[in-house]
Amino acid sequence: MTEQREAQIDAPEDEFQLSQRDLDSINKAIDEGDGPALDALMEPMHAADIADLIEQLTAPRRRSFIDLYSGEIDGDILTEIDESIREEVIEQLPREVLAEAVREMDSDDVVDLIEDMEAPEQQAILAALDESDRVAIEQSLTYPEYSAGRLMQSEVVTAPEHWTVGETIDFLRQEDWLPDQFYHVVLVDPRRHPAGYVTLGKLLSSRRNVPLREIVEDSFRTISVRQDEGDVAHVFNKYHLISAPVVDEHDRLVGVITIDDAMSVLDEEHEEDILRLAGVGDDSSISDTIVETTRQRVPWLAANIVTSLIAASVIALFEETIARLVALAVLMPIVASMGGNAGTQTLTVAVRGLATKSLTRANTVRIVRREMSVGLVNGVIFGLAMGGVTFLWFHDIRLSLVIGMAMIVNLFVAALGGILVPLGLDKVGADPALASGTFVTTVTDVVGFFTFLGLATLVLL
Amino acid sequence: MTEQREAQIDAPEDEFQLSQRDLDSINKAIDEGDGPALDALMEPMHAADIADLIEQLTAPRRRSFIDLYSGEIDGDILTEIDESIREEVIEQLPREVLAEAVREMDSDDVVDLIEDMEAPEQQAILAALDESDRVAIEQSLTYPEYSAGRLMQSEVVTAPEHWTVGETIDFLRQEDWLPDQFYHVVLVDPRRHPAGYVTLGKLLSSRRNVPLREIVEDSFRTISVRQDEGDVAHVFNKYHLISAPVVDEHDRLVGVITIDDAMSVLDEEHEEDILRLAGVGDDSSISDTIVETTRQRVPWLAANIVTSLIAASVIALFEETIARLVALAVLMPIVASMGGNAGTQTLTVAVRGLATKSLTRANTVRIVRREMSVGLVNGVIFGLAMGGVTFLWFHDIRLSLVIGMAMIVNLFVAALGGILVPLGLDKVGADPALASGTFVTTVTDVVGFFTFLGLATLVLL
Repeated sequence: MTEQREAQIDAPEDEFQLSQRDLDSINKAIDEGDGPALDALMEPMHAADIADLIEQLTAPRRRSFIDLYSGEIDGDILTEIDESIREEVIEQLPREVLAEAVREMDSDDVVDLIEDMEAPEQQAILAALDESDRVAIEQSLTYPEYSAGRLMQSEVVTAPEHWTVGETIDFLRQEDWLPDQFYHVVLVDPRRHPAGYVTLGKLLSSRRNVPLREIVEDSFRTISVRQDEGDVAHVFNKYHLISAPVVDEHDRLVGVITIDDAMSVLDEEHEEDILRLAGVGDDSSISDTIVETTRQRVPWLAANIVTSLIAASVIALFEETIARLVALAVLMPIVASMGGNAGTQTLTVAVRGLATKSLTRANTVRIVRREMSVGLVNGVIFGLAMGGVTFLWFHDIRLSLVIGMAMIVNLFVAALGGILVPLGLDKVGADPALASGTFVTTVTDVVGFFTFLGLATLVLL
Repeated sequence: MTEQREAQIDAPEDEFQLSQRDLDSINKAIDEGDGPALDALMEPMHAADIADLIEQLTAPRRRSFIDLYSGEIDGDILTEIDESIREEVIEQLPREVLAEAVREMDSDDVVDLIEDMEAPEQQAILAALDESDRVAIEQSLTYPEYSAGRLMQSEVVTAPEHWTVGETIDFLRQEDWLPDQFYHVVLVDPRRHPAGYVTLGKLLSSRRNVPLREIVEDSFRTISVRQDEGDVAHVFNKYHLISAPVVDEHDRLVGVITIDDAMSVLDEEHEEDILRLAGVGDDSSISDTIVETTRQRVPWLAANIVTSLIAASVIALFEETIARLVALAVLMPIVASMGGNAGTQTLTVAVRGLATKSLTRANTVRIVRREMSVGLVNGVIFGLAMGGVTFLWFHDIRLSLVIGMAMIVNLFVAALGGILVPLGLDKVGADPALASGTFVTTVTDVVGFFTFLGLATLVLL
C-alpha cells in the first residue's frame, strides 16, 4: 500500500480514542471523589472504551476509580481489560460485584478471566456460577492453554439433523438460554456428532417445510478441541469462517468458536511476532511499569552483548592489521551493518512465510534458491557501490576491491542465514520469530568482520 | 504467552496445508496434460486451497494448469488468489469464464478484483454485470483506495424501522437476491438513514408480533464510507462487531462491512507493519521473482548504506585515536550494536502502541518518561557489565570507564530516539513503521561511535 493513504482519508483521527478533555474531566471527578459526576461521564461509553480508560489511568487513580465506580463494572468491561491490569482490578472488586459480572459472561470469557488465577480464587468465582456453567468451564480448563478448548464457548445452538426450518424456528422461539451472538445452527446426530451447519440467513429466508439438510453450507469444517488457537485463527481467516463447531477426540460436539474471538487471537499472535522479532518480551503492555519493562528487555540486550563480544573477538584477531591501516576500522561497521540489514529482510520474510503457512515444504527449495540469488545480486550491487565510494574516499584500489568482495560474501551469507536459520528453528520446533534475529546478526557480524579484515590482511599487508 | 505452547498442542501440523504427495500428483497431471485426473484431484479442495496451489506452482506449470482447469476457476477462487499472481491468471482466462466468475461475486470482491486494472479491462469486466451491480461497483470505485467504501459490499438487508419480526421474516422468505452471508437486518428510515440493527439470532428467537425496535442491539455503530480500512478493522476488533453499516456524508446507508473482510484487513495491516519494520517492501509475496524481490529490497539497503557512511565518517574523525589504541576498534561496534538493539525495542513498542491506539495523547508523557527511565537503567546495567568485561580483557581501568559511560549515554539516547522518532513521524503524518528504524539506528550508531571515541580521546590520550 502506498503512503498516499494518510492523505486521502479525511476521517477524524481520534474518533475512537478518548479525548484529552474527557480524560481531564474524569480525572477531576476521580480526584474529587465525585461518584455521580463520574457516572454521568462514563454513561455513554462502550465497555471496550471503559476498559481502555482503566488501563490508561495511573495506578493510584485506578484504585480510586474502582472504589467509586465498582458497582458498574460488569462482565463486558472485565473481559476487555488487558490481562496485565485485570488481576489488580479483580482483587479490588467486592465479591458480589465480581460474582454478578461473571454470571453474565459467556463461558469462553470466564475461562479467559480465571485461567491464570490461583486455585482458591478460581474456586471462589466458580462457586458463583450455576452448576451447568461451572461444569462447562471446568471442562474447558482441562484442555491445554492456547488450545481451541480454551477459546470455545460451550453454549452451542444445535438441532437434530432431521428437523425442518419450521421446527428449528419454533425451537429457537421457546428457548431462553440462547447465547448473545450466534450465527449458525449446528446439525447433530443422536450421539452429538456434528453433521453440518445452517446459517441463520438461510434459516430465515427458507420456507418452514424445507429440511435443514437441504440448506446446509458446503464449507462445513470442525475444529479439534486440542488445536492450537493460532492455527484456529489462521483457518478462520483463510476459509472466511464465521463460527466453527469444536469437537473432542471422539468427534463429539463440545463447543463453538466465533470469528470475533478468532480475530482477537490473530491480532495477539501478530503482536507477539512483531515484539519477538524486535527482541521485546511478548507480554509487554503499554501499562507496564519501569521495573516490568526493564525485566522484559534485559534478557535480549544481554544476549546481544554476548553476540557483540563474539564479533569483537573476531576484530581482535586483526588488531595488527587495523593498527597498520586505520581506514579498516572506519569501514568495517558498514560491511557488518549491511549484512545485518539484508539478513533481517530475508529472515522477516521467512518468519512471516512460516507463520502464514505460505512457506511450505512444496516451495521451500524455490524460496531458498530465490533468496540466495537475491543475496548475490544485492552483494554485487552494493559491493560495486562501496568499492566506488571507498576509492573516492581513500584512493586505494586494493582497499576498494577488499570491501567489494567482503560485501558480496556477507550479503550472500546474510541471505543464506536469513532463510536457513528460521527454517531450521521451525524444523526443531522452536519459534523462528523468537531467536532468528540474534542468530542471523551474529552470523553477519562475524562473517562481515572476518572476511573484510581477513581479506585486508591477505591483500593489503 | 509461553514457549510451552508448541509442546502442549499435539494437533497435526500440516492439516491445512497441501501435502507433498498431493502436489506431486497434481504436478504430474499438469505435466501430462491429464485434465480428468486433475479435476479428480482438485474436486475435494476448498477455493482457498486451490488459490494457494495456484500461487505455489511454478510459472510455466501455472499456465498449463489454467489451460487445463480454466472452466472450473470461479469467483471464489479468483477472490482468494494473491494479487501478485491474480492479474496473470485473469489475463489467461477465457473472457466468458471470467464474466461468469465475476457475476457470482459479491460487490466488494469485484471491487477488490478490478480496482488495480487498466480502464479498458475494468470496462470489459463491468460489461458482464447486471446494471444494478455495475452501478454499485462504479460507486465504490469513486471512494479512496483503502477506505471503507472500497471494502464494503453494497448488498445490505434492510427493513423499515416500524416493521415487526413477522413482517421481516416474510420479507426475507420472498427475496431471492439476499447476500451469501449476512448477520444483521439494518433498520432504516424512509430516507435510508440507519436507525439500528437486529441480529438474526434475535429475529429467530423472538415472536412474530415483536416490533424490530424492541430487539435492536445496544452497540449500534456506523462506519463512514471514507474511513481508512485499517481503522475499520481496529473498530471491529475493539468492539467485537460482526457487521457494520456504512454511511455516506449525508448519513445514508450505502453498504455493509462484515467481520471476515475486517479480519483480512487486520491481517494485511499487521503483515505490512512487520515487513516495513524490517525494511522489506510491504507488497512482497512468497511468489515474487528474483527481480521483484531485489527491486523491493534495494531501496532499504541503499538507505542503510548512506546511514552507515554517516556513522563511518564519525569514526573517521577519530582515526588518530584508534591508531594509538586499537582496542577501541575492537570495542566500538559493541556500543553501537547495543544502542541499535535497545532503540529497536523501544521503537517497536512505540510503533505498535500507535498502531493499536494504546499510545494516546493521554499517556504519551508517562510512556516517554518510562522509556527514558528504562533506557537509563539499562545503560547502568550494561555499562557496568561492559566496564567489567573490558577490564578483564584489556586490564585498563580508564578504558573500562570510557566504555561504561558511552554505554549509559547511548542506551539513554536509544530510548529517547526510540520513543520520540515514531511519535514525531506520526505527528507529521508519516508512517512510523516505515522510517523509524533507519532514523533510530543512525542516531544510535552516530551517538555510540561519537561518545565512545570522543570520551576515549579526552580520557586516554
